Order: sequence, then C-alpha cells, then structure tokens
Amino acid sequence: MSHDQHAHFMREAIRLAQRNMDSLQGGPFGAVIVRDGKIISTGVNQVTSHNDPTAHAEVVAIRNACAQIGHWDLHACEIYTSCEPCPMCLGAIWWARLHRIWYAANQEQAAQAGFDDARFYDELALPAHARTISMHNILPEEGKLVLHAWQDKQDKIPY
Amino acid sequence: MSHDQHAHFMREAIRLAQRNMDSLQGGPFGAVIVRDGKIISTGVNQVTSHNDPTAHAEVVAIRNACAQIGHWDLHACEIYTSCEPCPMCLGAIWWARLHRIWYAANQEQAAQAGFDDARFYDELALPAHARTISMHNILPEEGKLVLHAWQDKQDKIPY
Repeated sequence: MSHDQHAHFMREAIRLAQRNMDSLQGGPFGAVIVRDGKIISTGVNQVTSHNDPTAHAEVVAIRNACAQIGHWDLHACEIYTSCEPCPMCLGAIWWARLHRIWYAANQEQAAQAGFDDARFYDELALPAHARTISMHNILPEEGKLVLHAWQDKQDKIPY
Repeated sequence: MSHDQHAHFMREAIRLAQRNMDSLQGGPFGAVIVRDGKIISTGVNQVTSHNDPTAHAEVVAIRNACAQIGHWDLHACEIYTSCEPCPMCLGAIWWARLHRIWYAANQEQAAQAGFDDARFYDELALPAHARTISMHNILPEEGKLVLHAWQDKQDKIPY
C-alpha cells in the first residue's frame, strides 16, 4: 500500500476518535483493522459508556474483527490506531497475531492528556515485587497441575 | 483475610480453570474477583470458544465484575487467577484499578505448557523499534490534535 493509503486509514481512526470524544461515548481513541486494503472492523474507546475498563479502541476493534471473520487469529491484518497502544492493547494485538501496528499520537502525548499508558509501561518493565500493585504467589503446586494437564491433553484446541 | 480464605478463593479459580479445560471451552485458566470477602465475578479463558483473543480469564472476570457493579473501577476488589497474568491482563488489571493480584502458576510454567506470556513480557521490555511486531508512526500531528482537544474539553468523563 502507498503512503496515501496508510494515511487514509489513519485519518479514519483519528476521525472515529474525535467523534467518540465529541459524542461523550468515551476517551479520544479510535482504531481500524485492515485486511487486503479494506477496513474489516473499527473500534472506539467505550470505557465509561460501557463500564468496561478493557474496552479500549484497539481491543474493541480486535473483538469486532474476530467476530467478523469467525476466528481469533488476525495474522493477515494490520491495525491503525489514533494513539500508540497501551500495554493491555499491545498484549491484545500480540495475542490476535496482527502483523503490523500503525499509530499517530504517542504514549508521552497520551500521558500529557492525562492517561496512564506511559506509567504502565514503566511498571511493566519492573520485576513483579517492585511494582506498585502487590502480587502474591499462593498454591503454586496446585496451579501447576492444571497446566501440566493441559500439556498432556490430547483433544485440546491450541491457540 | 486469613491464608485459608485466600487459598479458598484460589482453589475456586483453579477449579474453574480445570473445568474450562475439561469442557473444551478454552485454555486452562480461571479467575475470581473478590470484594469484602465475597466472590463478585468469575472468568475463564474463552479465546477459542468465543473467537476472542482478548477473552482471557482475568479480562472476562473484570468485564463481569464491572457489569455486576455498574462501574469500570474495581479499586475495592482483588483478583485471584490460576496463573500469573500476561501483559494484556496485567494492563487490564491496572486499568480496572484492582488493588491486589493473587496468582498460582507462574509465567515460566505457562510457557512450558505452550503459552506465549513470557515471550510477550520480553518483547514489552524492548524499545518499540526492537520488537518483532513492526510499529510505524504516521500523522503524529493529526493524532496529537485529538488529545489536545480532550485536554481542553470541559464536559468530558474522565477515567
């Protein structure tokens, strides 16, 4: 695809972000997922309107795309997002196997606008014990057994 | 809460993980969210059964808890998950403001069972240009404008 085509898809993501903010549906974020040069899904931030802290634009676009194609694997697709993905969204993009990310604003600009993305990146880079959220390991042996059972399972559906 | 109570909630998360795997609904992962000593929601991995790569046990439990209480903020709650959260789930836990994480199996054991969590943690620790997924910044000025508009917006709903 040409630069103009990439810019076209990104402008659509930014337009969705602006419209979402203007209509008070959520934060100023939008995303589109493209396959074979066509938009197959869109997403906007719905955290406050849907009471769902995971409903970031990228996550919503991924869920919509997967519903659209009937599979959880989007390796043939790329995502255009109005702002650099937060760690949650980057994780979702990996799990969905999207092969390329296009973003406009960056995490520092998101931080200036009052969002915590940059801080979460800093936290993730720390070892678990140094993070501000406390993490406790209990019943590790019992937890391990389930994973071992998965390894041995013959009829599992891998992903 | 006593150690026995924490172990009780974790055993429930592990039981859900085992049942989910046995019933072929998804991966061997379960989570419960607790407030004031009571379980207010549960979640299991539904990636393959729901064609949703974001439907990890923790994310599903968070969505269910938020639907239950009618808010996106779970700061009064803690989460018990049968396995250490992946970066996506850790991000979701942060955004939901959960104040404590209890986990049983760890990310190394998840990796041994064939899951990519540990690799994603390694990727996240890298600068964007060094990651295996390619990230491209385009139209940064146009993207920034939406975030500036959010900063100036008087009637926004912050989160």
